[in-house]
Amino acid sequence: MHFELAFVLLFSIATAVAIAARYFKFPYTVALVLAGLGLGMVHVFEPPHLTKELLFAIILPGLLFEAAFHVEFRKFWKNKLAITSLAIPGVVASMGLTALLLSPAMRGMNFLEGFGLIHAMVFASLIVSTDPIAVVGLFKALGAPKRLAILVEGESLLNDGTAVVLFMLVLSVANGERFTVGGATLDFLRIAGMGMVIGAAVGFAVAQVIQRVDDAMVEITLTVIAAYGSFVVAEHFHYSGVIATVVAGMLCGNWAARLGMSPTTRVAVESFWEYLAFALNSVVFLLIGLEVQLTSLLASWQPILLAYAAVMVGRAVVVYGVSGLLRLTSERLPWSWSAVLTWSGLRGAVSMVLVLGLPADFAHREMLVNMTFGVVVLSIIFQGLTIAPVLKKLGITGIKDVYQEQYELARGRLGAIHAALAALEAMRRSREIPVDVLEPMERDYQQKATAVEQELTALKQQSTRFHEEEHQEAARRVLIVEKDALFDAYQKGTLNKDVFEHLCAELDERIAKTKDAEAHVPLEDAHATPEAVAS
Amino acid sequence: MHFELAFVLLFSIATAVAIAARYFKFPYTVALVLAGLGLGMVHVFEPPHLTKELLFAIILPGLLFEAAFHVEFRKFWKNKLAITSLAIPGVVASMGLTALLLSPAMRGMNFLEGFGLIHAMVFASLIVSTDPIAVVGLFKALGAPKRLAILVEGESLLNDGTAVVLFMLVLSVANGERFTVGGATLDFLRIAGMGMVIGAAVGFAVAQVIQRVDDAMVEITLTVIAAYGSFVVAEHFHYSGVIATVVAGMLCGNWAARLGMSPTTRVAVESFWEYLAFALNSVVFLLIGLEVQLTSLLASWQPILLAYAAVMVGRAVVVYGVSGLLRLTSERLPWSWSAVLTWSGLRGAVSMVLVLGLPADFAHREMLVNMTFGVVVLSIIFQGLTIAPVLKKLGITGIKDVYQEQYELARGRLGAIHAALAALEAMRRSREIPVDVLEPMERDYQQKATAVEQELTALKQQSTRFHEEEHQEAARRVLIVEKDALFDAYQKGTLNKDVFEHLCAELDERIAKTKDAEAHVPLEDAHATPEAVAS
Repeated sequence: MHFELAFVLLFSIATAVAIAARYFKFPYTVALVLAGLGLGMVHVFEPPHLTKELLFAIILPGLLFEAAFHVEFRKFWKNKLAITSLAIPGVVASMGLTALLLSPAMRGMNFLEGFGLIHAMVFASLIVSTDPIAVVGLFKALGAPKRLAILVEGESLLNDGTAVVLFMLVLSVANGERFTVGGATLDFLRIAGMGMVIGAAVGFAVAQVIQRVDDAMVEITLTVIAAYGSFVVAEHFHYSGVIATVVAGMLCGNWAARLGMSPTTRVAVESFWEYLAFALNSVVFLLIGLEVQLTSLLASWQPILLAYAAVMVGRAVVVYGVSGLLRLTSERLPWSWSAVLTWSGLRGAVSMVLVLGLPADFAHREMLVNMTFGVVVLSIIFQGLTIAPVLKKLGITGIKDVYQEQYELARGRLGAIHAALAALEAMRRSREIPVDVLEPMERDYQQKATAVEQELTALKQQSTRFHEEEHQEAARRVLIVEKDALFDAYQKGTLNKDVFEHLCAELDERIAKTKDAEAHVPLEDAHATPEAVAS
Repeated sequence: MHFELAFVLLFSIATAVAIAARYFKFPYTVALVLAGLGLGMVHVFEPPHLTKELLFAIILPGLLFEAAFHVEFRKFWKNKLAITSLAIPGVVASMGLTALLLSPAMRGMNFLEGFGLIHAMVFASLIVSTDPIAVVGLFKALGAPKRLAILVEGESLLNDGTAVVLFMLVLSVANGERFTVGGATLDFLRIAGMGMVIGAAVGFAVAQVIQRVDDAMVEITLTVIAAYGSFVVAEHFHYSGVIATVVAGMLCGNWAARLGMSPTTRVAVESFWEYLAFALNSVVFLLIGLEVQLTSLLASWQPILLAYAAVMVGRAVVVYGVSGLLRLTSERLPWSWSAVLTWSGLRGAVSMVLVLGLPADFAHREMLVNMTFGVVVLSIIFQGLTIAPVLKKLGITGIKDVYQEQYELARGRLGAIHAALAALEAMRRSREIPVDVLEPMERDYQQKATAVEQELTALKQQSTRFHEEEHQEAARRVLIVEKDALFDAYQKGTLNKDVFEHLCAELDERIAKTKDAEAHVPLEDAHATPEAVAS
């Protein structure tokens, strides 16, 4: 019963926080951490601890699966170079840099006797990976450009694989084992690769069943099995559960859901995962706040700030470096995005669980715990509260003018009204509620729909941009068809090589322009910095 | 990780069972119990046990709340006499009768040295209440008349309160404490009454918040809090958690959901609970099967059959007795329903958990466990498999002719098609999927919709019954308006008392007829047995 009581209390607190956060327009995850910190100080109840079991057995697979389920593979694949270079060599470089900065600084400030490079490396390896839970939760609420969101989410979904291997290696070195670059690389390839294989196998098997069944309840259960089954099987064999669940989630979302589910089932599956993710998110951010002893963090504020600075510098250098290298490829990013990528690298529950898993007699364990908790709390609260203004300042979400906002509001409302009408229609069909009760409601919604449609028409007349936006995607497709036709003609010999190449270059330029518009790069920026146009 | 692995395995087995059950048209809950029995024999994995914590902290509140959420309070209230007399005095009488039959029979057959009346009473008190989980699961799939379903579900939702108090009283007498009827009555009133108060308080508080918030995620969380919060608070103070959750569920379903939720939110809340109930049901019936050792049941097949007979006779006598008494009231039931009420009284996980909770040194504990498990498994499998034929045989679901079935199928299909079209529309709006992918799908569904609508028109021309059915409810409402007008005229003095009473009697007869048709009492029966018409 204690578990149940704690769970009811956590849910009640989360509900109160959600209502308050919405009322005061405050980010929900930040509000949850703050509420957790406050509740931890007054000791009103004994909350469940953020244990490895709770995080790994219940919270992480569910949240990772849900995030991966909604990642569009097509867009993910288009950014594969950027994502993998941030998630694999980027994480290694960032960890090394953080450790190299932190170790002499700690010695120089004389905070702690005997805090050497190896302790700095333990800290850096467990804090280096951005937390998918924190990052995805943040980005969903931001309304950032889709490509930027894909980059940030994709990186955070994949870099845990790298980080966990790094952490294990550093720990084994700290315990006196020999380290070789070859061995480490092999370990990484084995753990990540087998995670991918297991995730793909589970995802494939589940997708096969989903395609043969048409029953929403069974298909929801199958996605639950894919999420937790892939994680638990991979972890059981000491491969990366994180990567397995992400791969299974992407397979289910991009393949099984699109081909194997009827529309009704897809809606049921998505609304189930939407709620599960909301509930798990609410619990994990409250528990992060509750786990932290604010007094002991305040007591070691100097090393925490130092650690935070080292972590941020490490990330910034790597992100700008990777961005620089990407300019040599087709996946170049606007410079302004590097700032966002740096600033959105939140740390979270995974780091906290890793540091709590250190042996009790590990040297400087208490300091490492304080530094980790401090950096996690700082990154969630400080970066979480400032990322929206940063995006605005950089002009990345700044293109929305008043009309744009009205237009999107109206479109959102229209969608909601149509959902309401569909629900009324369903009730009418199921005869759950008498028609004479339903009819006035339906009339009411119909009137609302007409009003909103008129508003949309008026807005379209006031600005041509919405119209343009709606044609953007269509235009891109037409251009690709054109290119395909050119290629076809060239293959058949109707076009000679020179003409073909010239026409292709022309087309590519036009395609790049539509791509650019799709990525929501601000138009002012595009004129000012030519590389944004050519990207 | 063990918990997680077991949970993934249970879900995988349940999915396989669900797919097979649907393919072979076999009742799902019965198939789960059989699968559990089979798996328990081959010992392939160590399943989680059906503990009191698991059942009371997780499974029971969720399933009770979901069932109560969908009970229409109006219909429940109309049958309050029948439901409460079955659930309170009925349970006491049925328990006494079962014990009085069982005790001399066990002695007569010489199965067990020293199995006396008090042991028979312990058994009877823990087995007497019908299990809401088993019963509601069964009735949902049956498509029985609505009023009969309300009776069966209402009784099973309420009688656990009585049974748990009886069980505690009998146990205390078995331990040598003194028993008084007055004390027992007071205990019952306190435990059930305070359960109602706590459920009402939690349900009221949650409903207040639901009315002030418009956010599907938060409102789903609030219903979860109502379900588990009411249960855990009531149990914490040693009142009836079952009754608290049922009251909270009825308040949320009949009041909060209808007044405080937007249609979209209501759909989200209902689909969340639909899935939660499916998942919990799948787990509990599998665990029932897994908990039972088939070999030890077979070894004591004679006392189990004896116990089963005593339980069934006890229930039959009480149900027919209550039905007889109800004939003196406005809530009279057709005699054929008594057979269904008797036969649908399945026993389930609650009895199993109660018997497992007996102290290890309790006299004849092993025999009591075997008898309980045996009766539970027999009732789920034997009654579960035969209830549909029994209903058909009694002509209770037999009124559906071929046209009726085709008509309902077509209406169901049309509903599904419209849901699909709405989902496609939503995807088009959210631009999740390109329009050129959606359009052929939409055309396909539109064609299907037209075909089904034509089929419906054709069916309506072939039989006038559907048209009549659709007018039944409307007619009833018009009659009530007429009665209201009569009453008004009488109050104003336009009608004298004699004329008013005559007209009222006429109207009441017509209202009763439409009510009757609403309750789906077979028309043949109605002509044969005048009481069905007058009921």
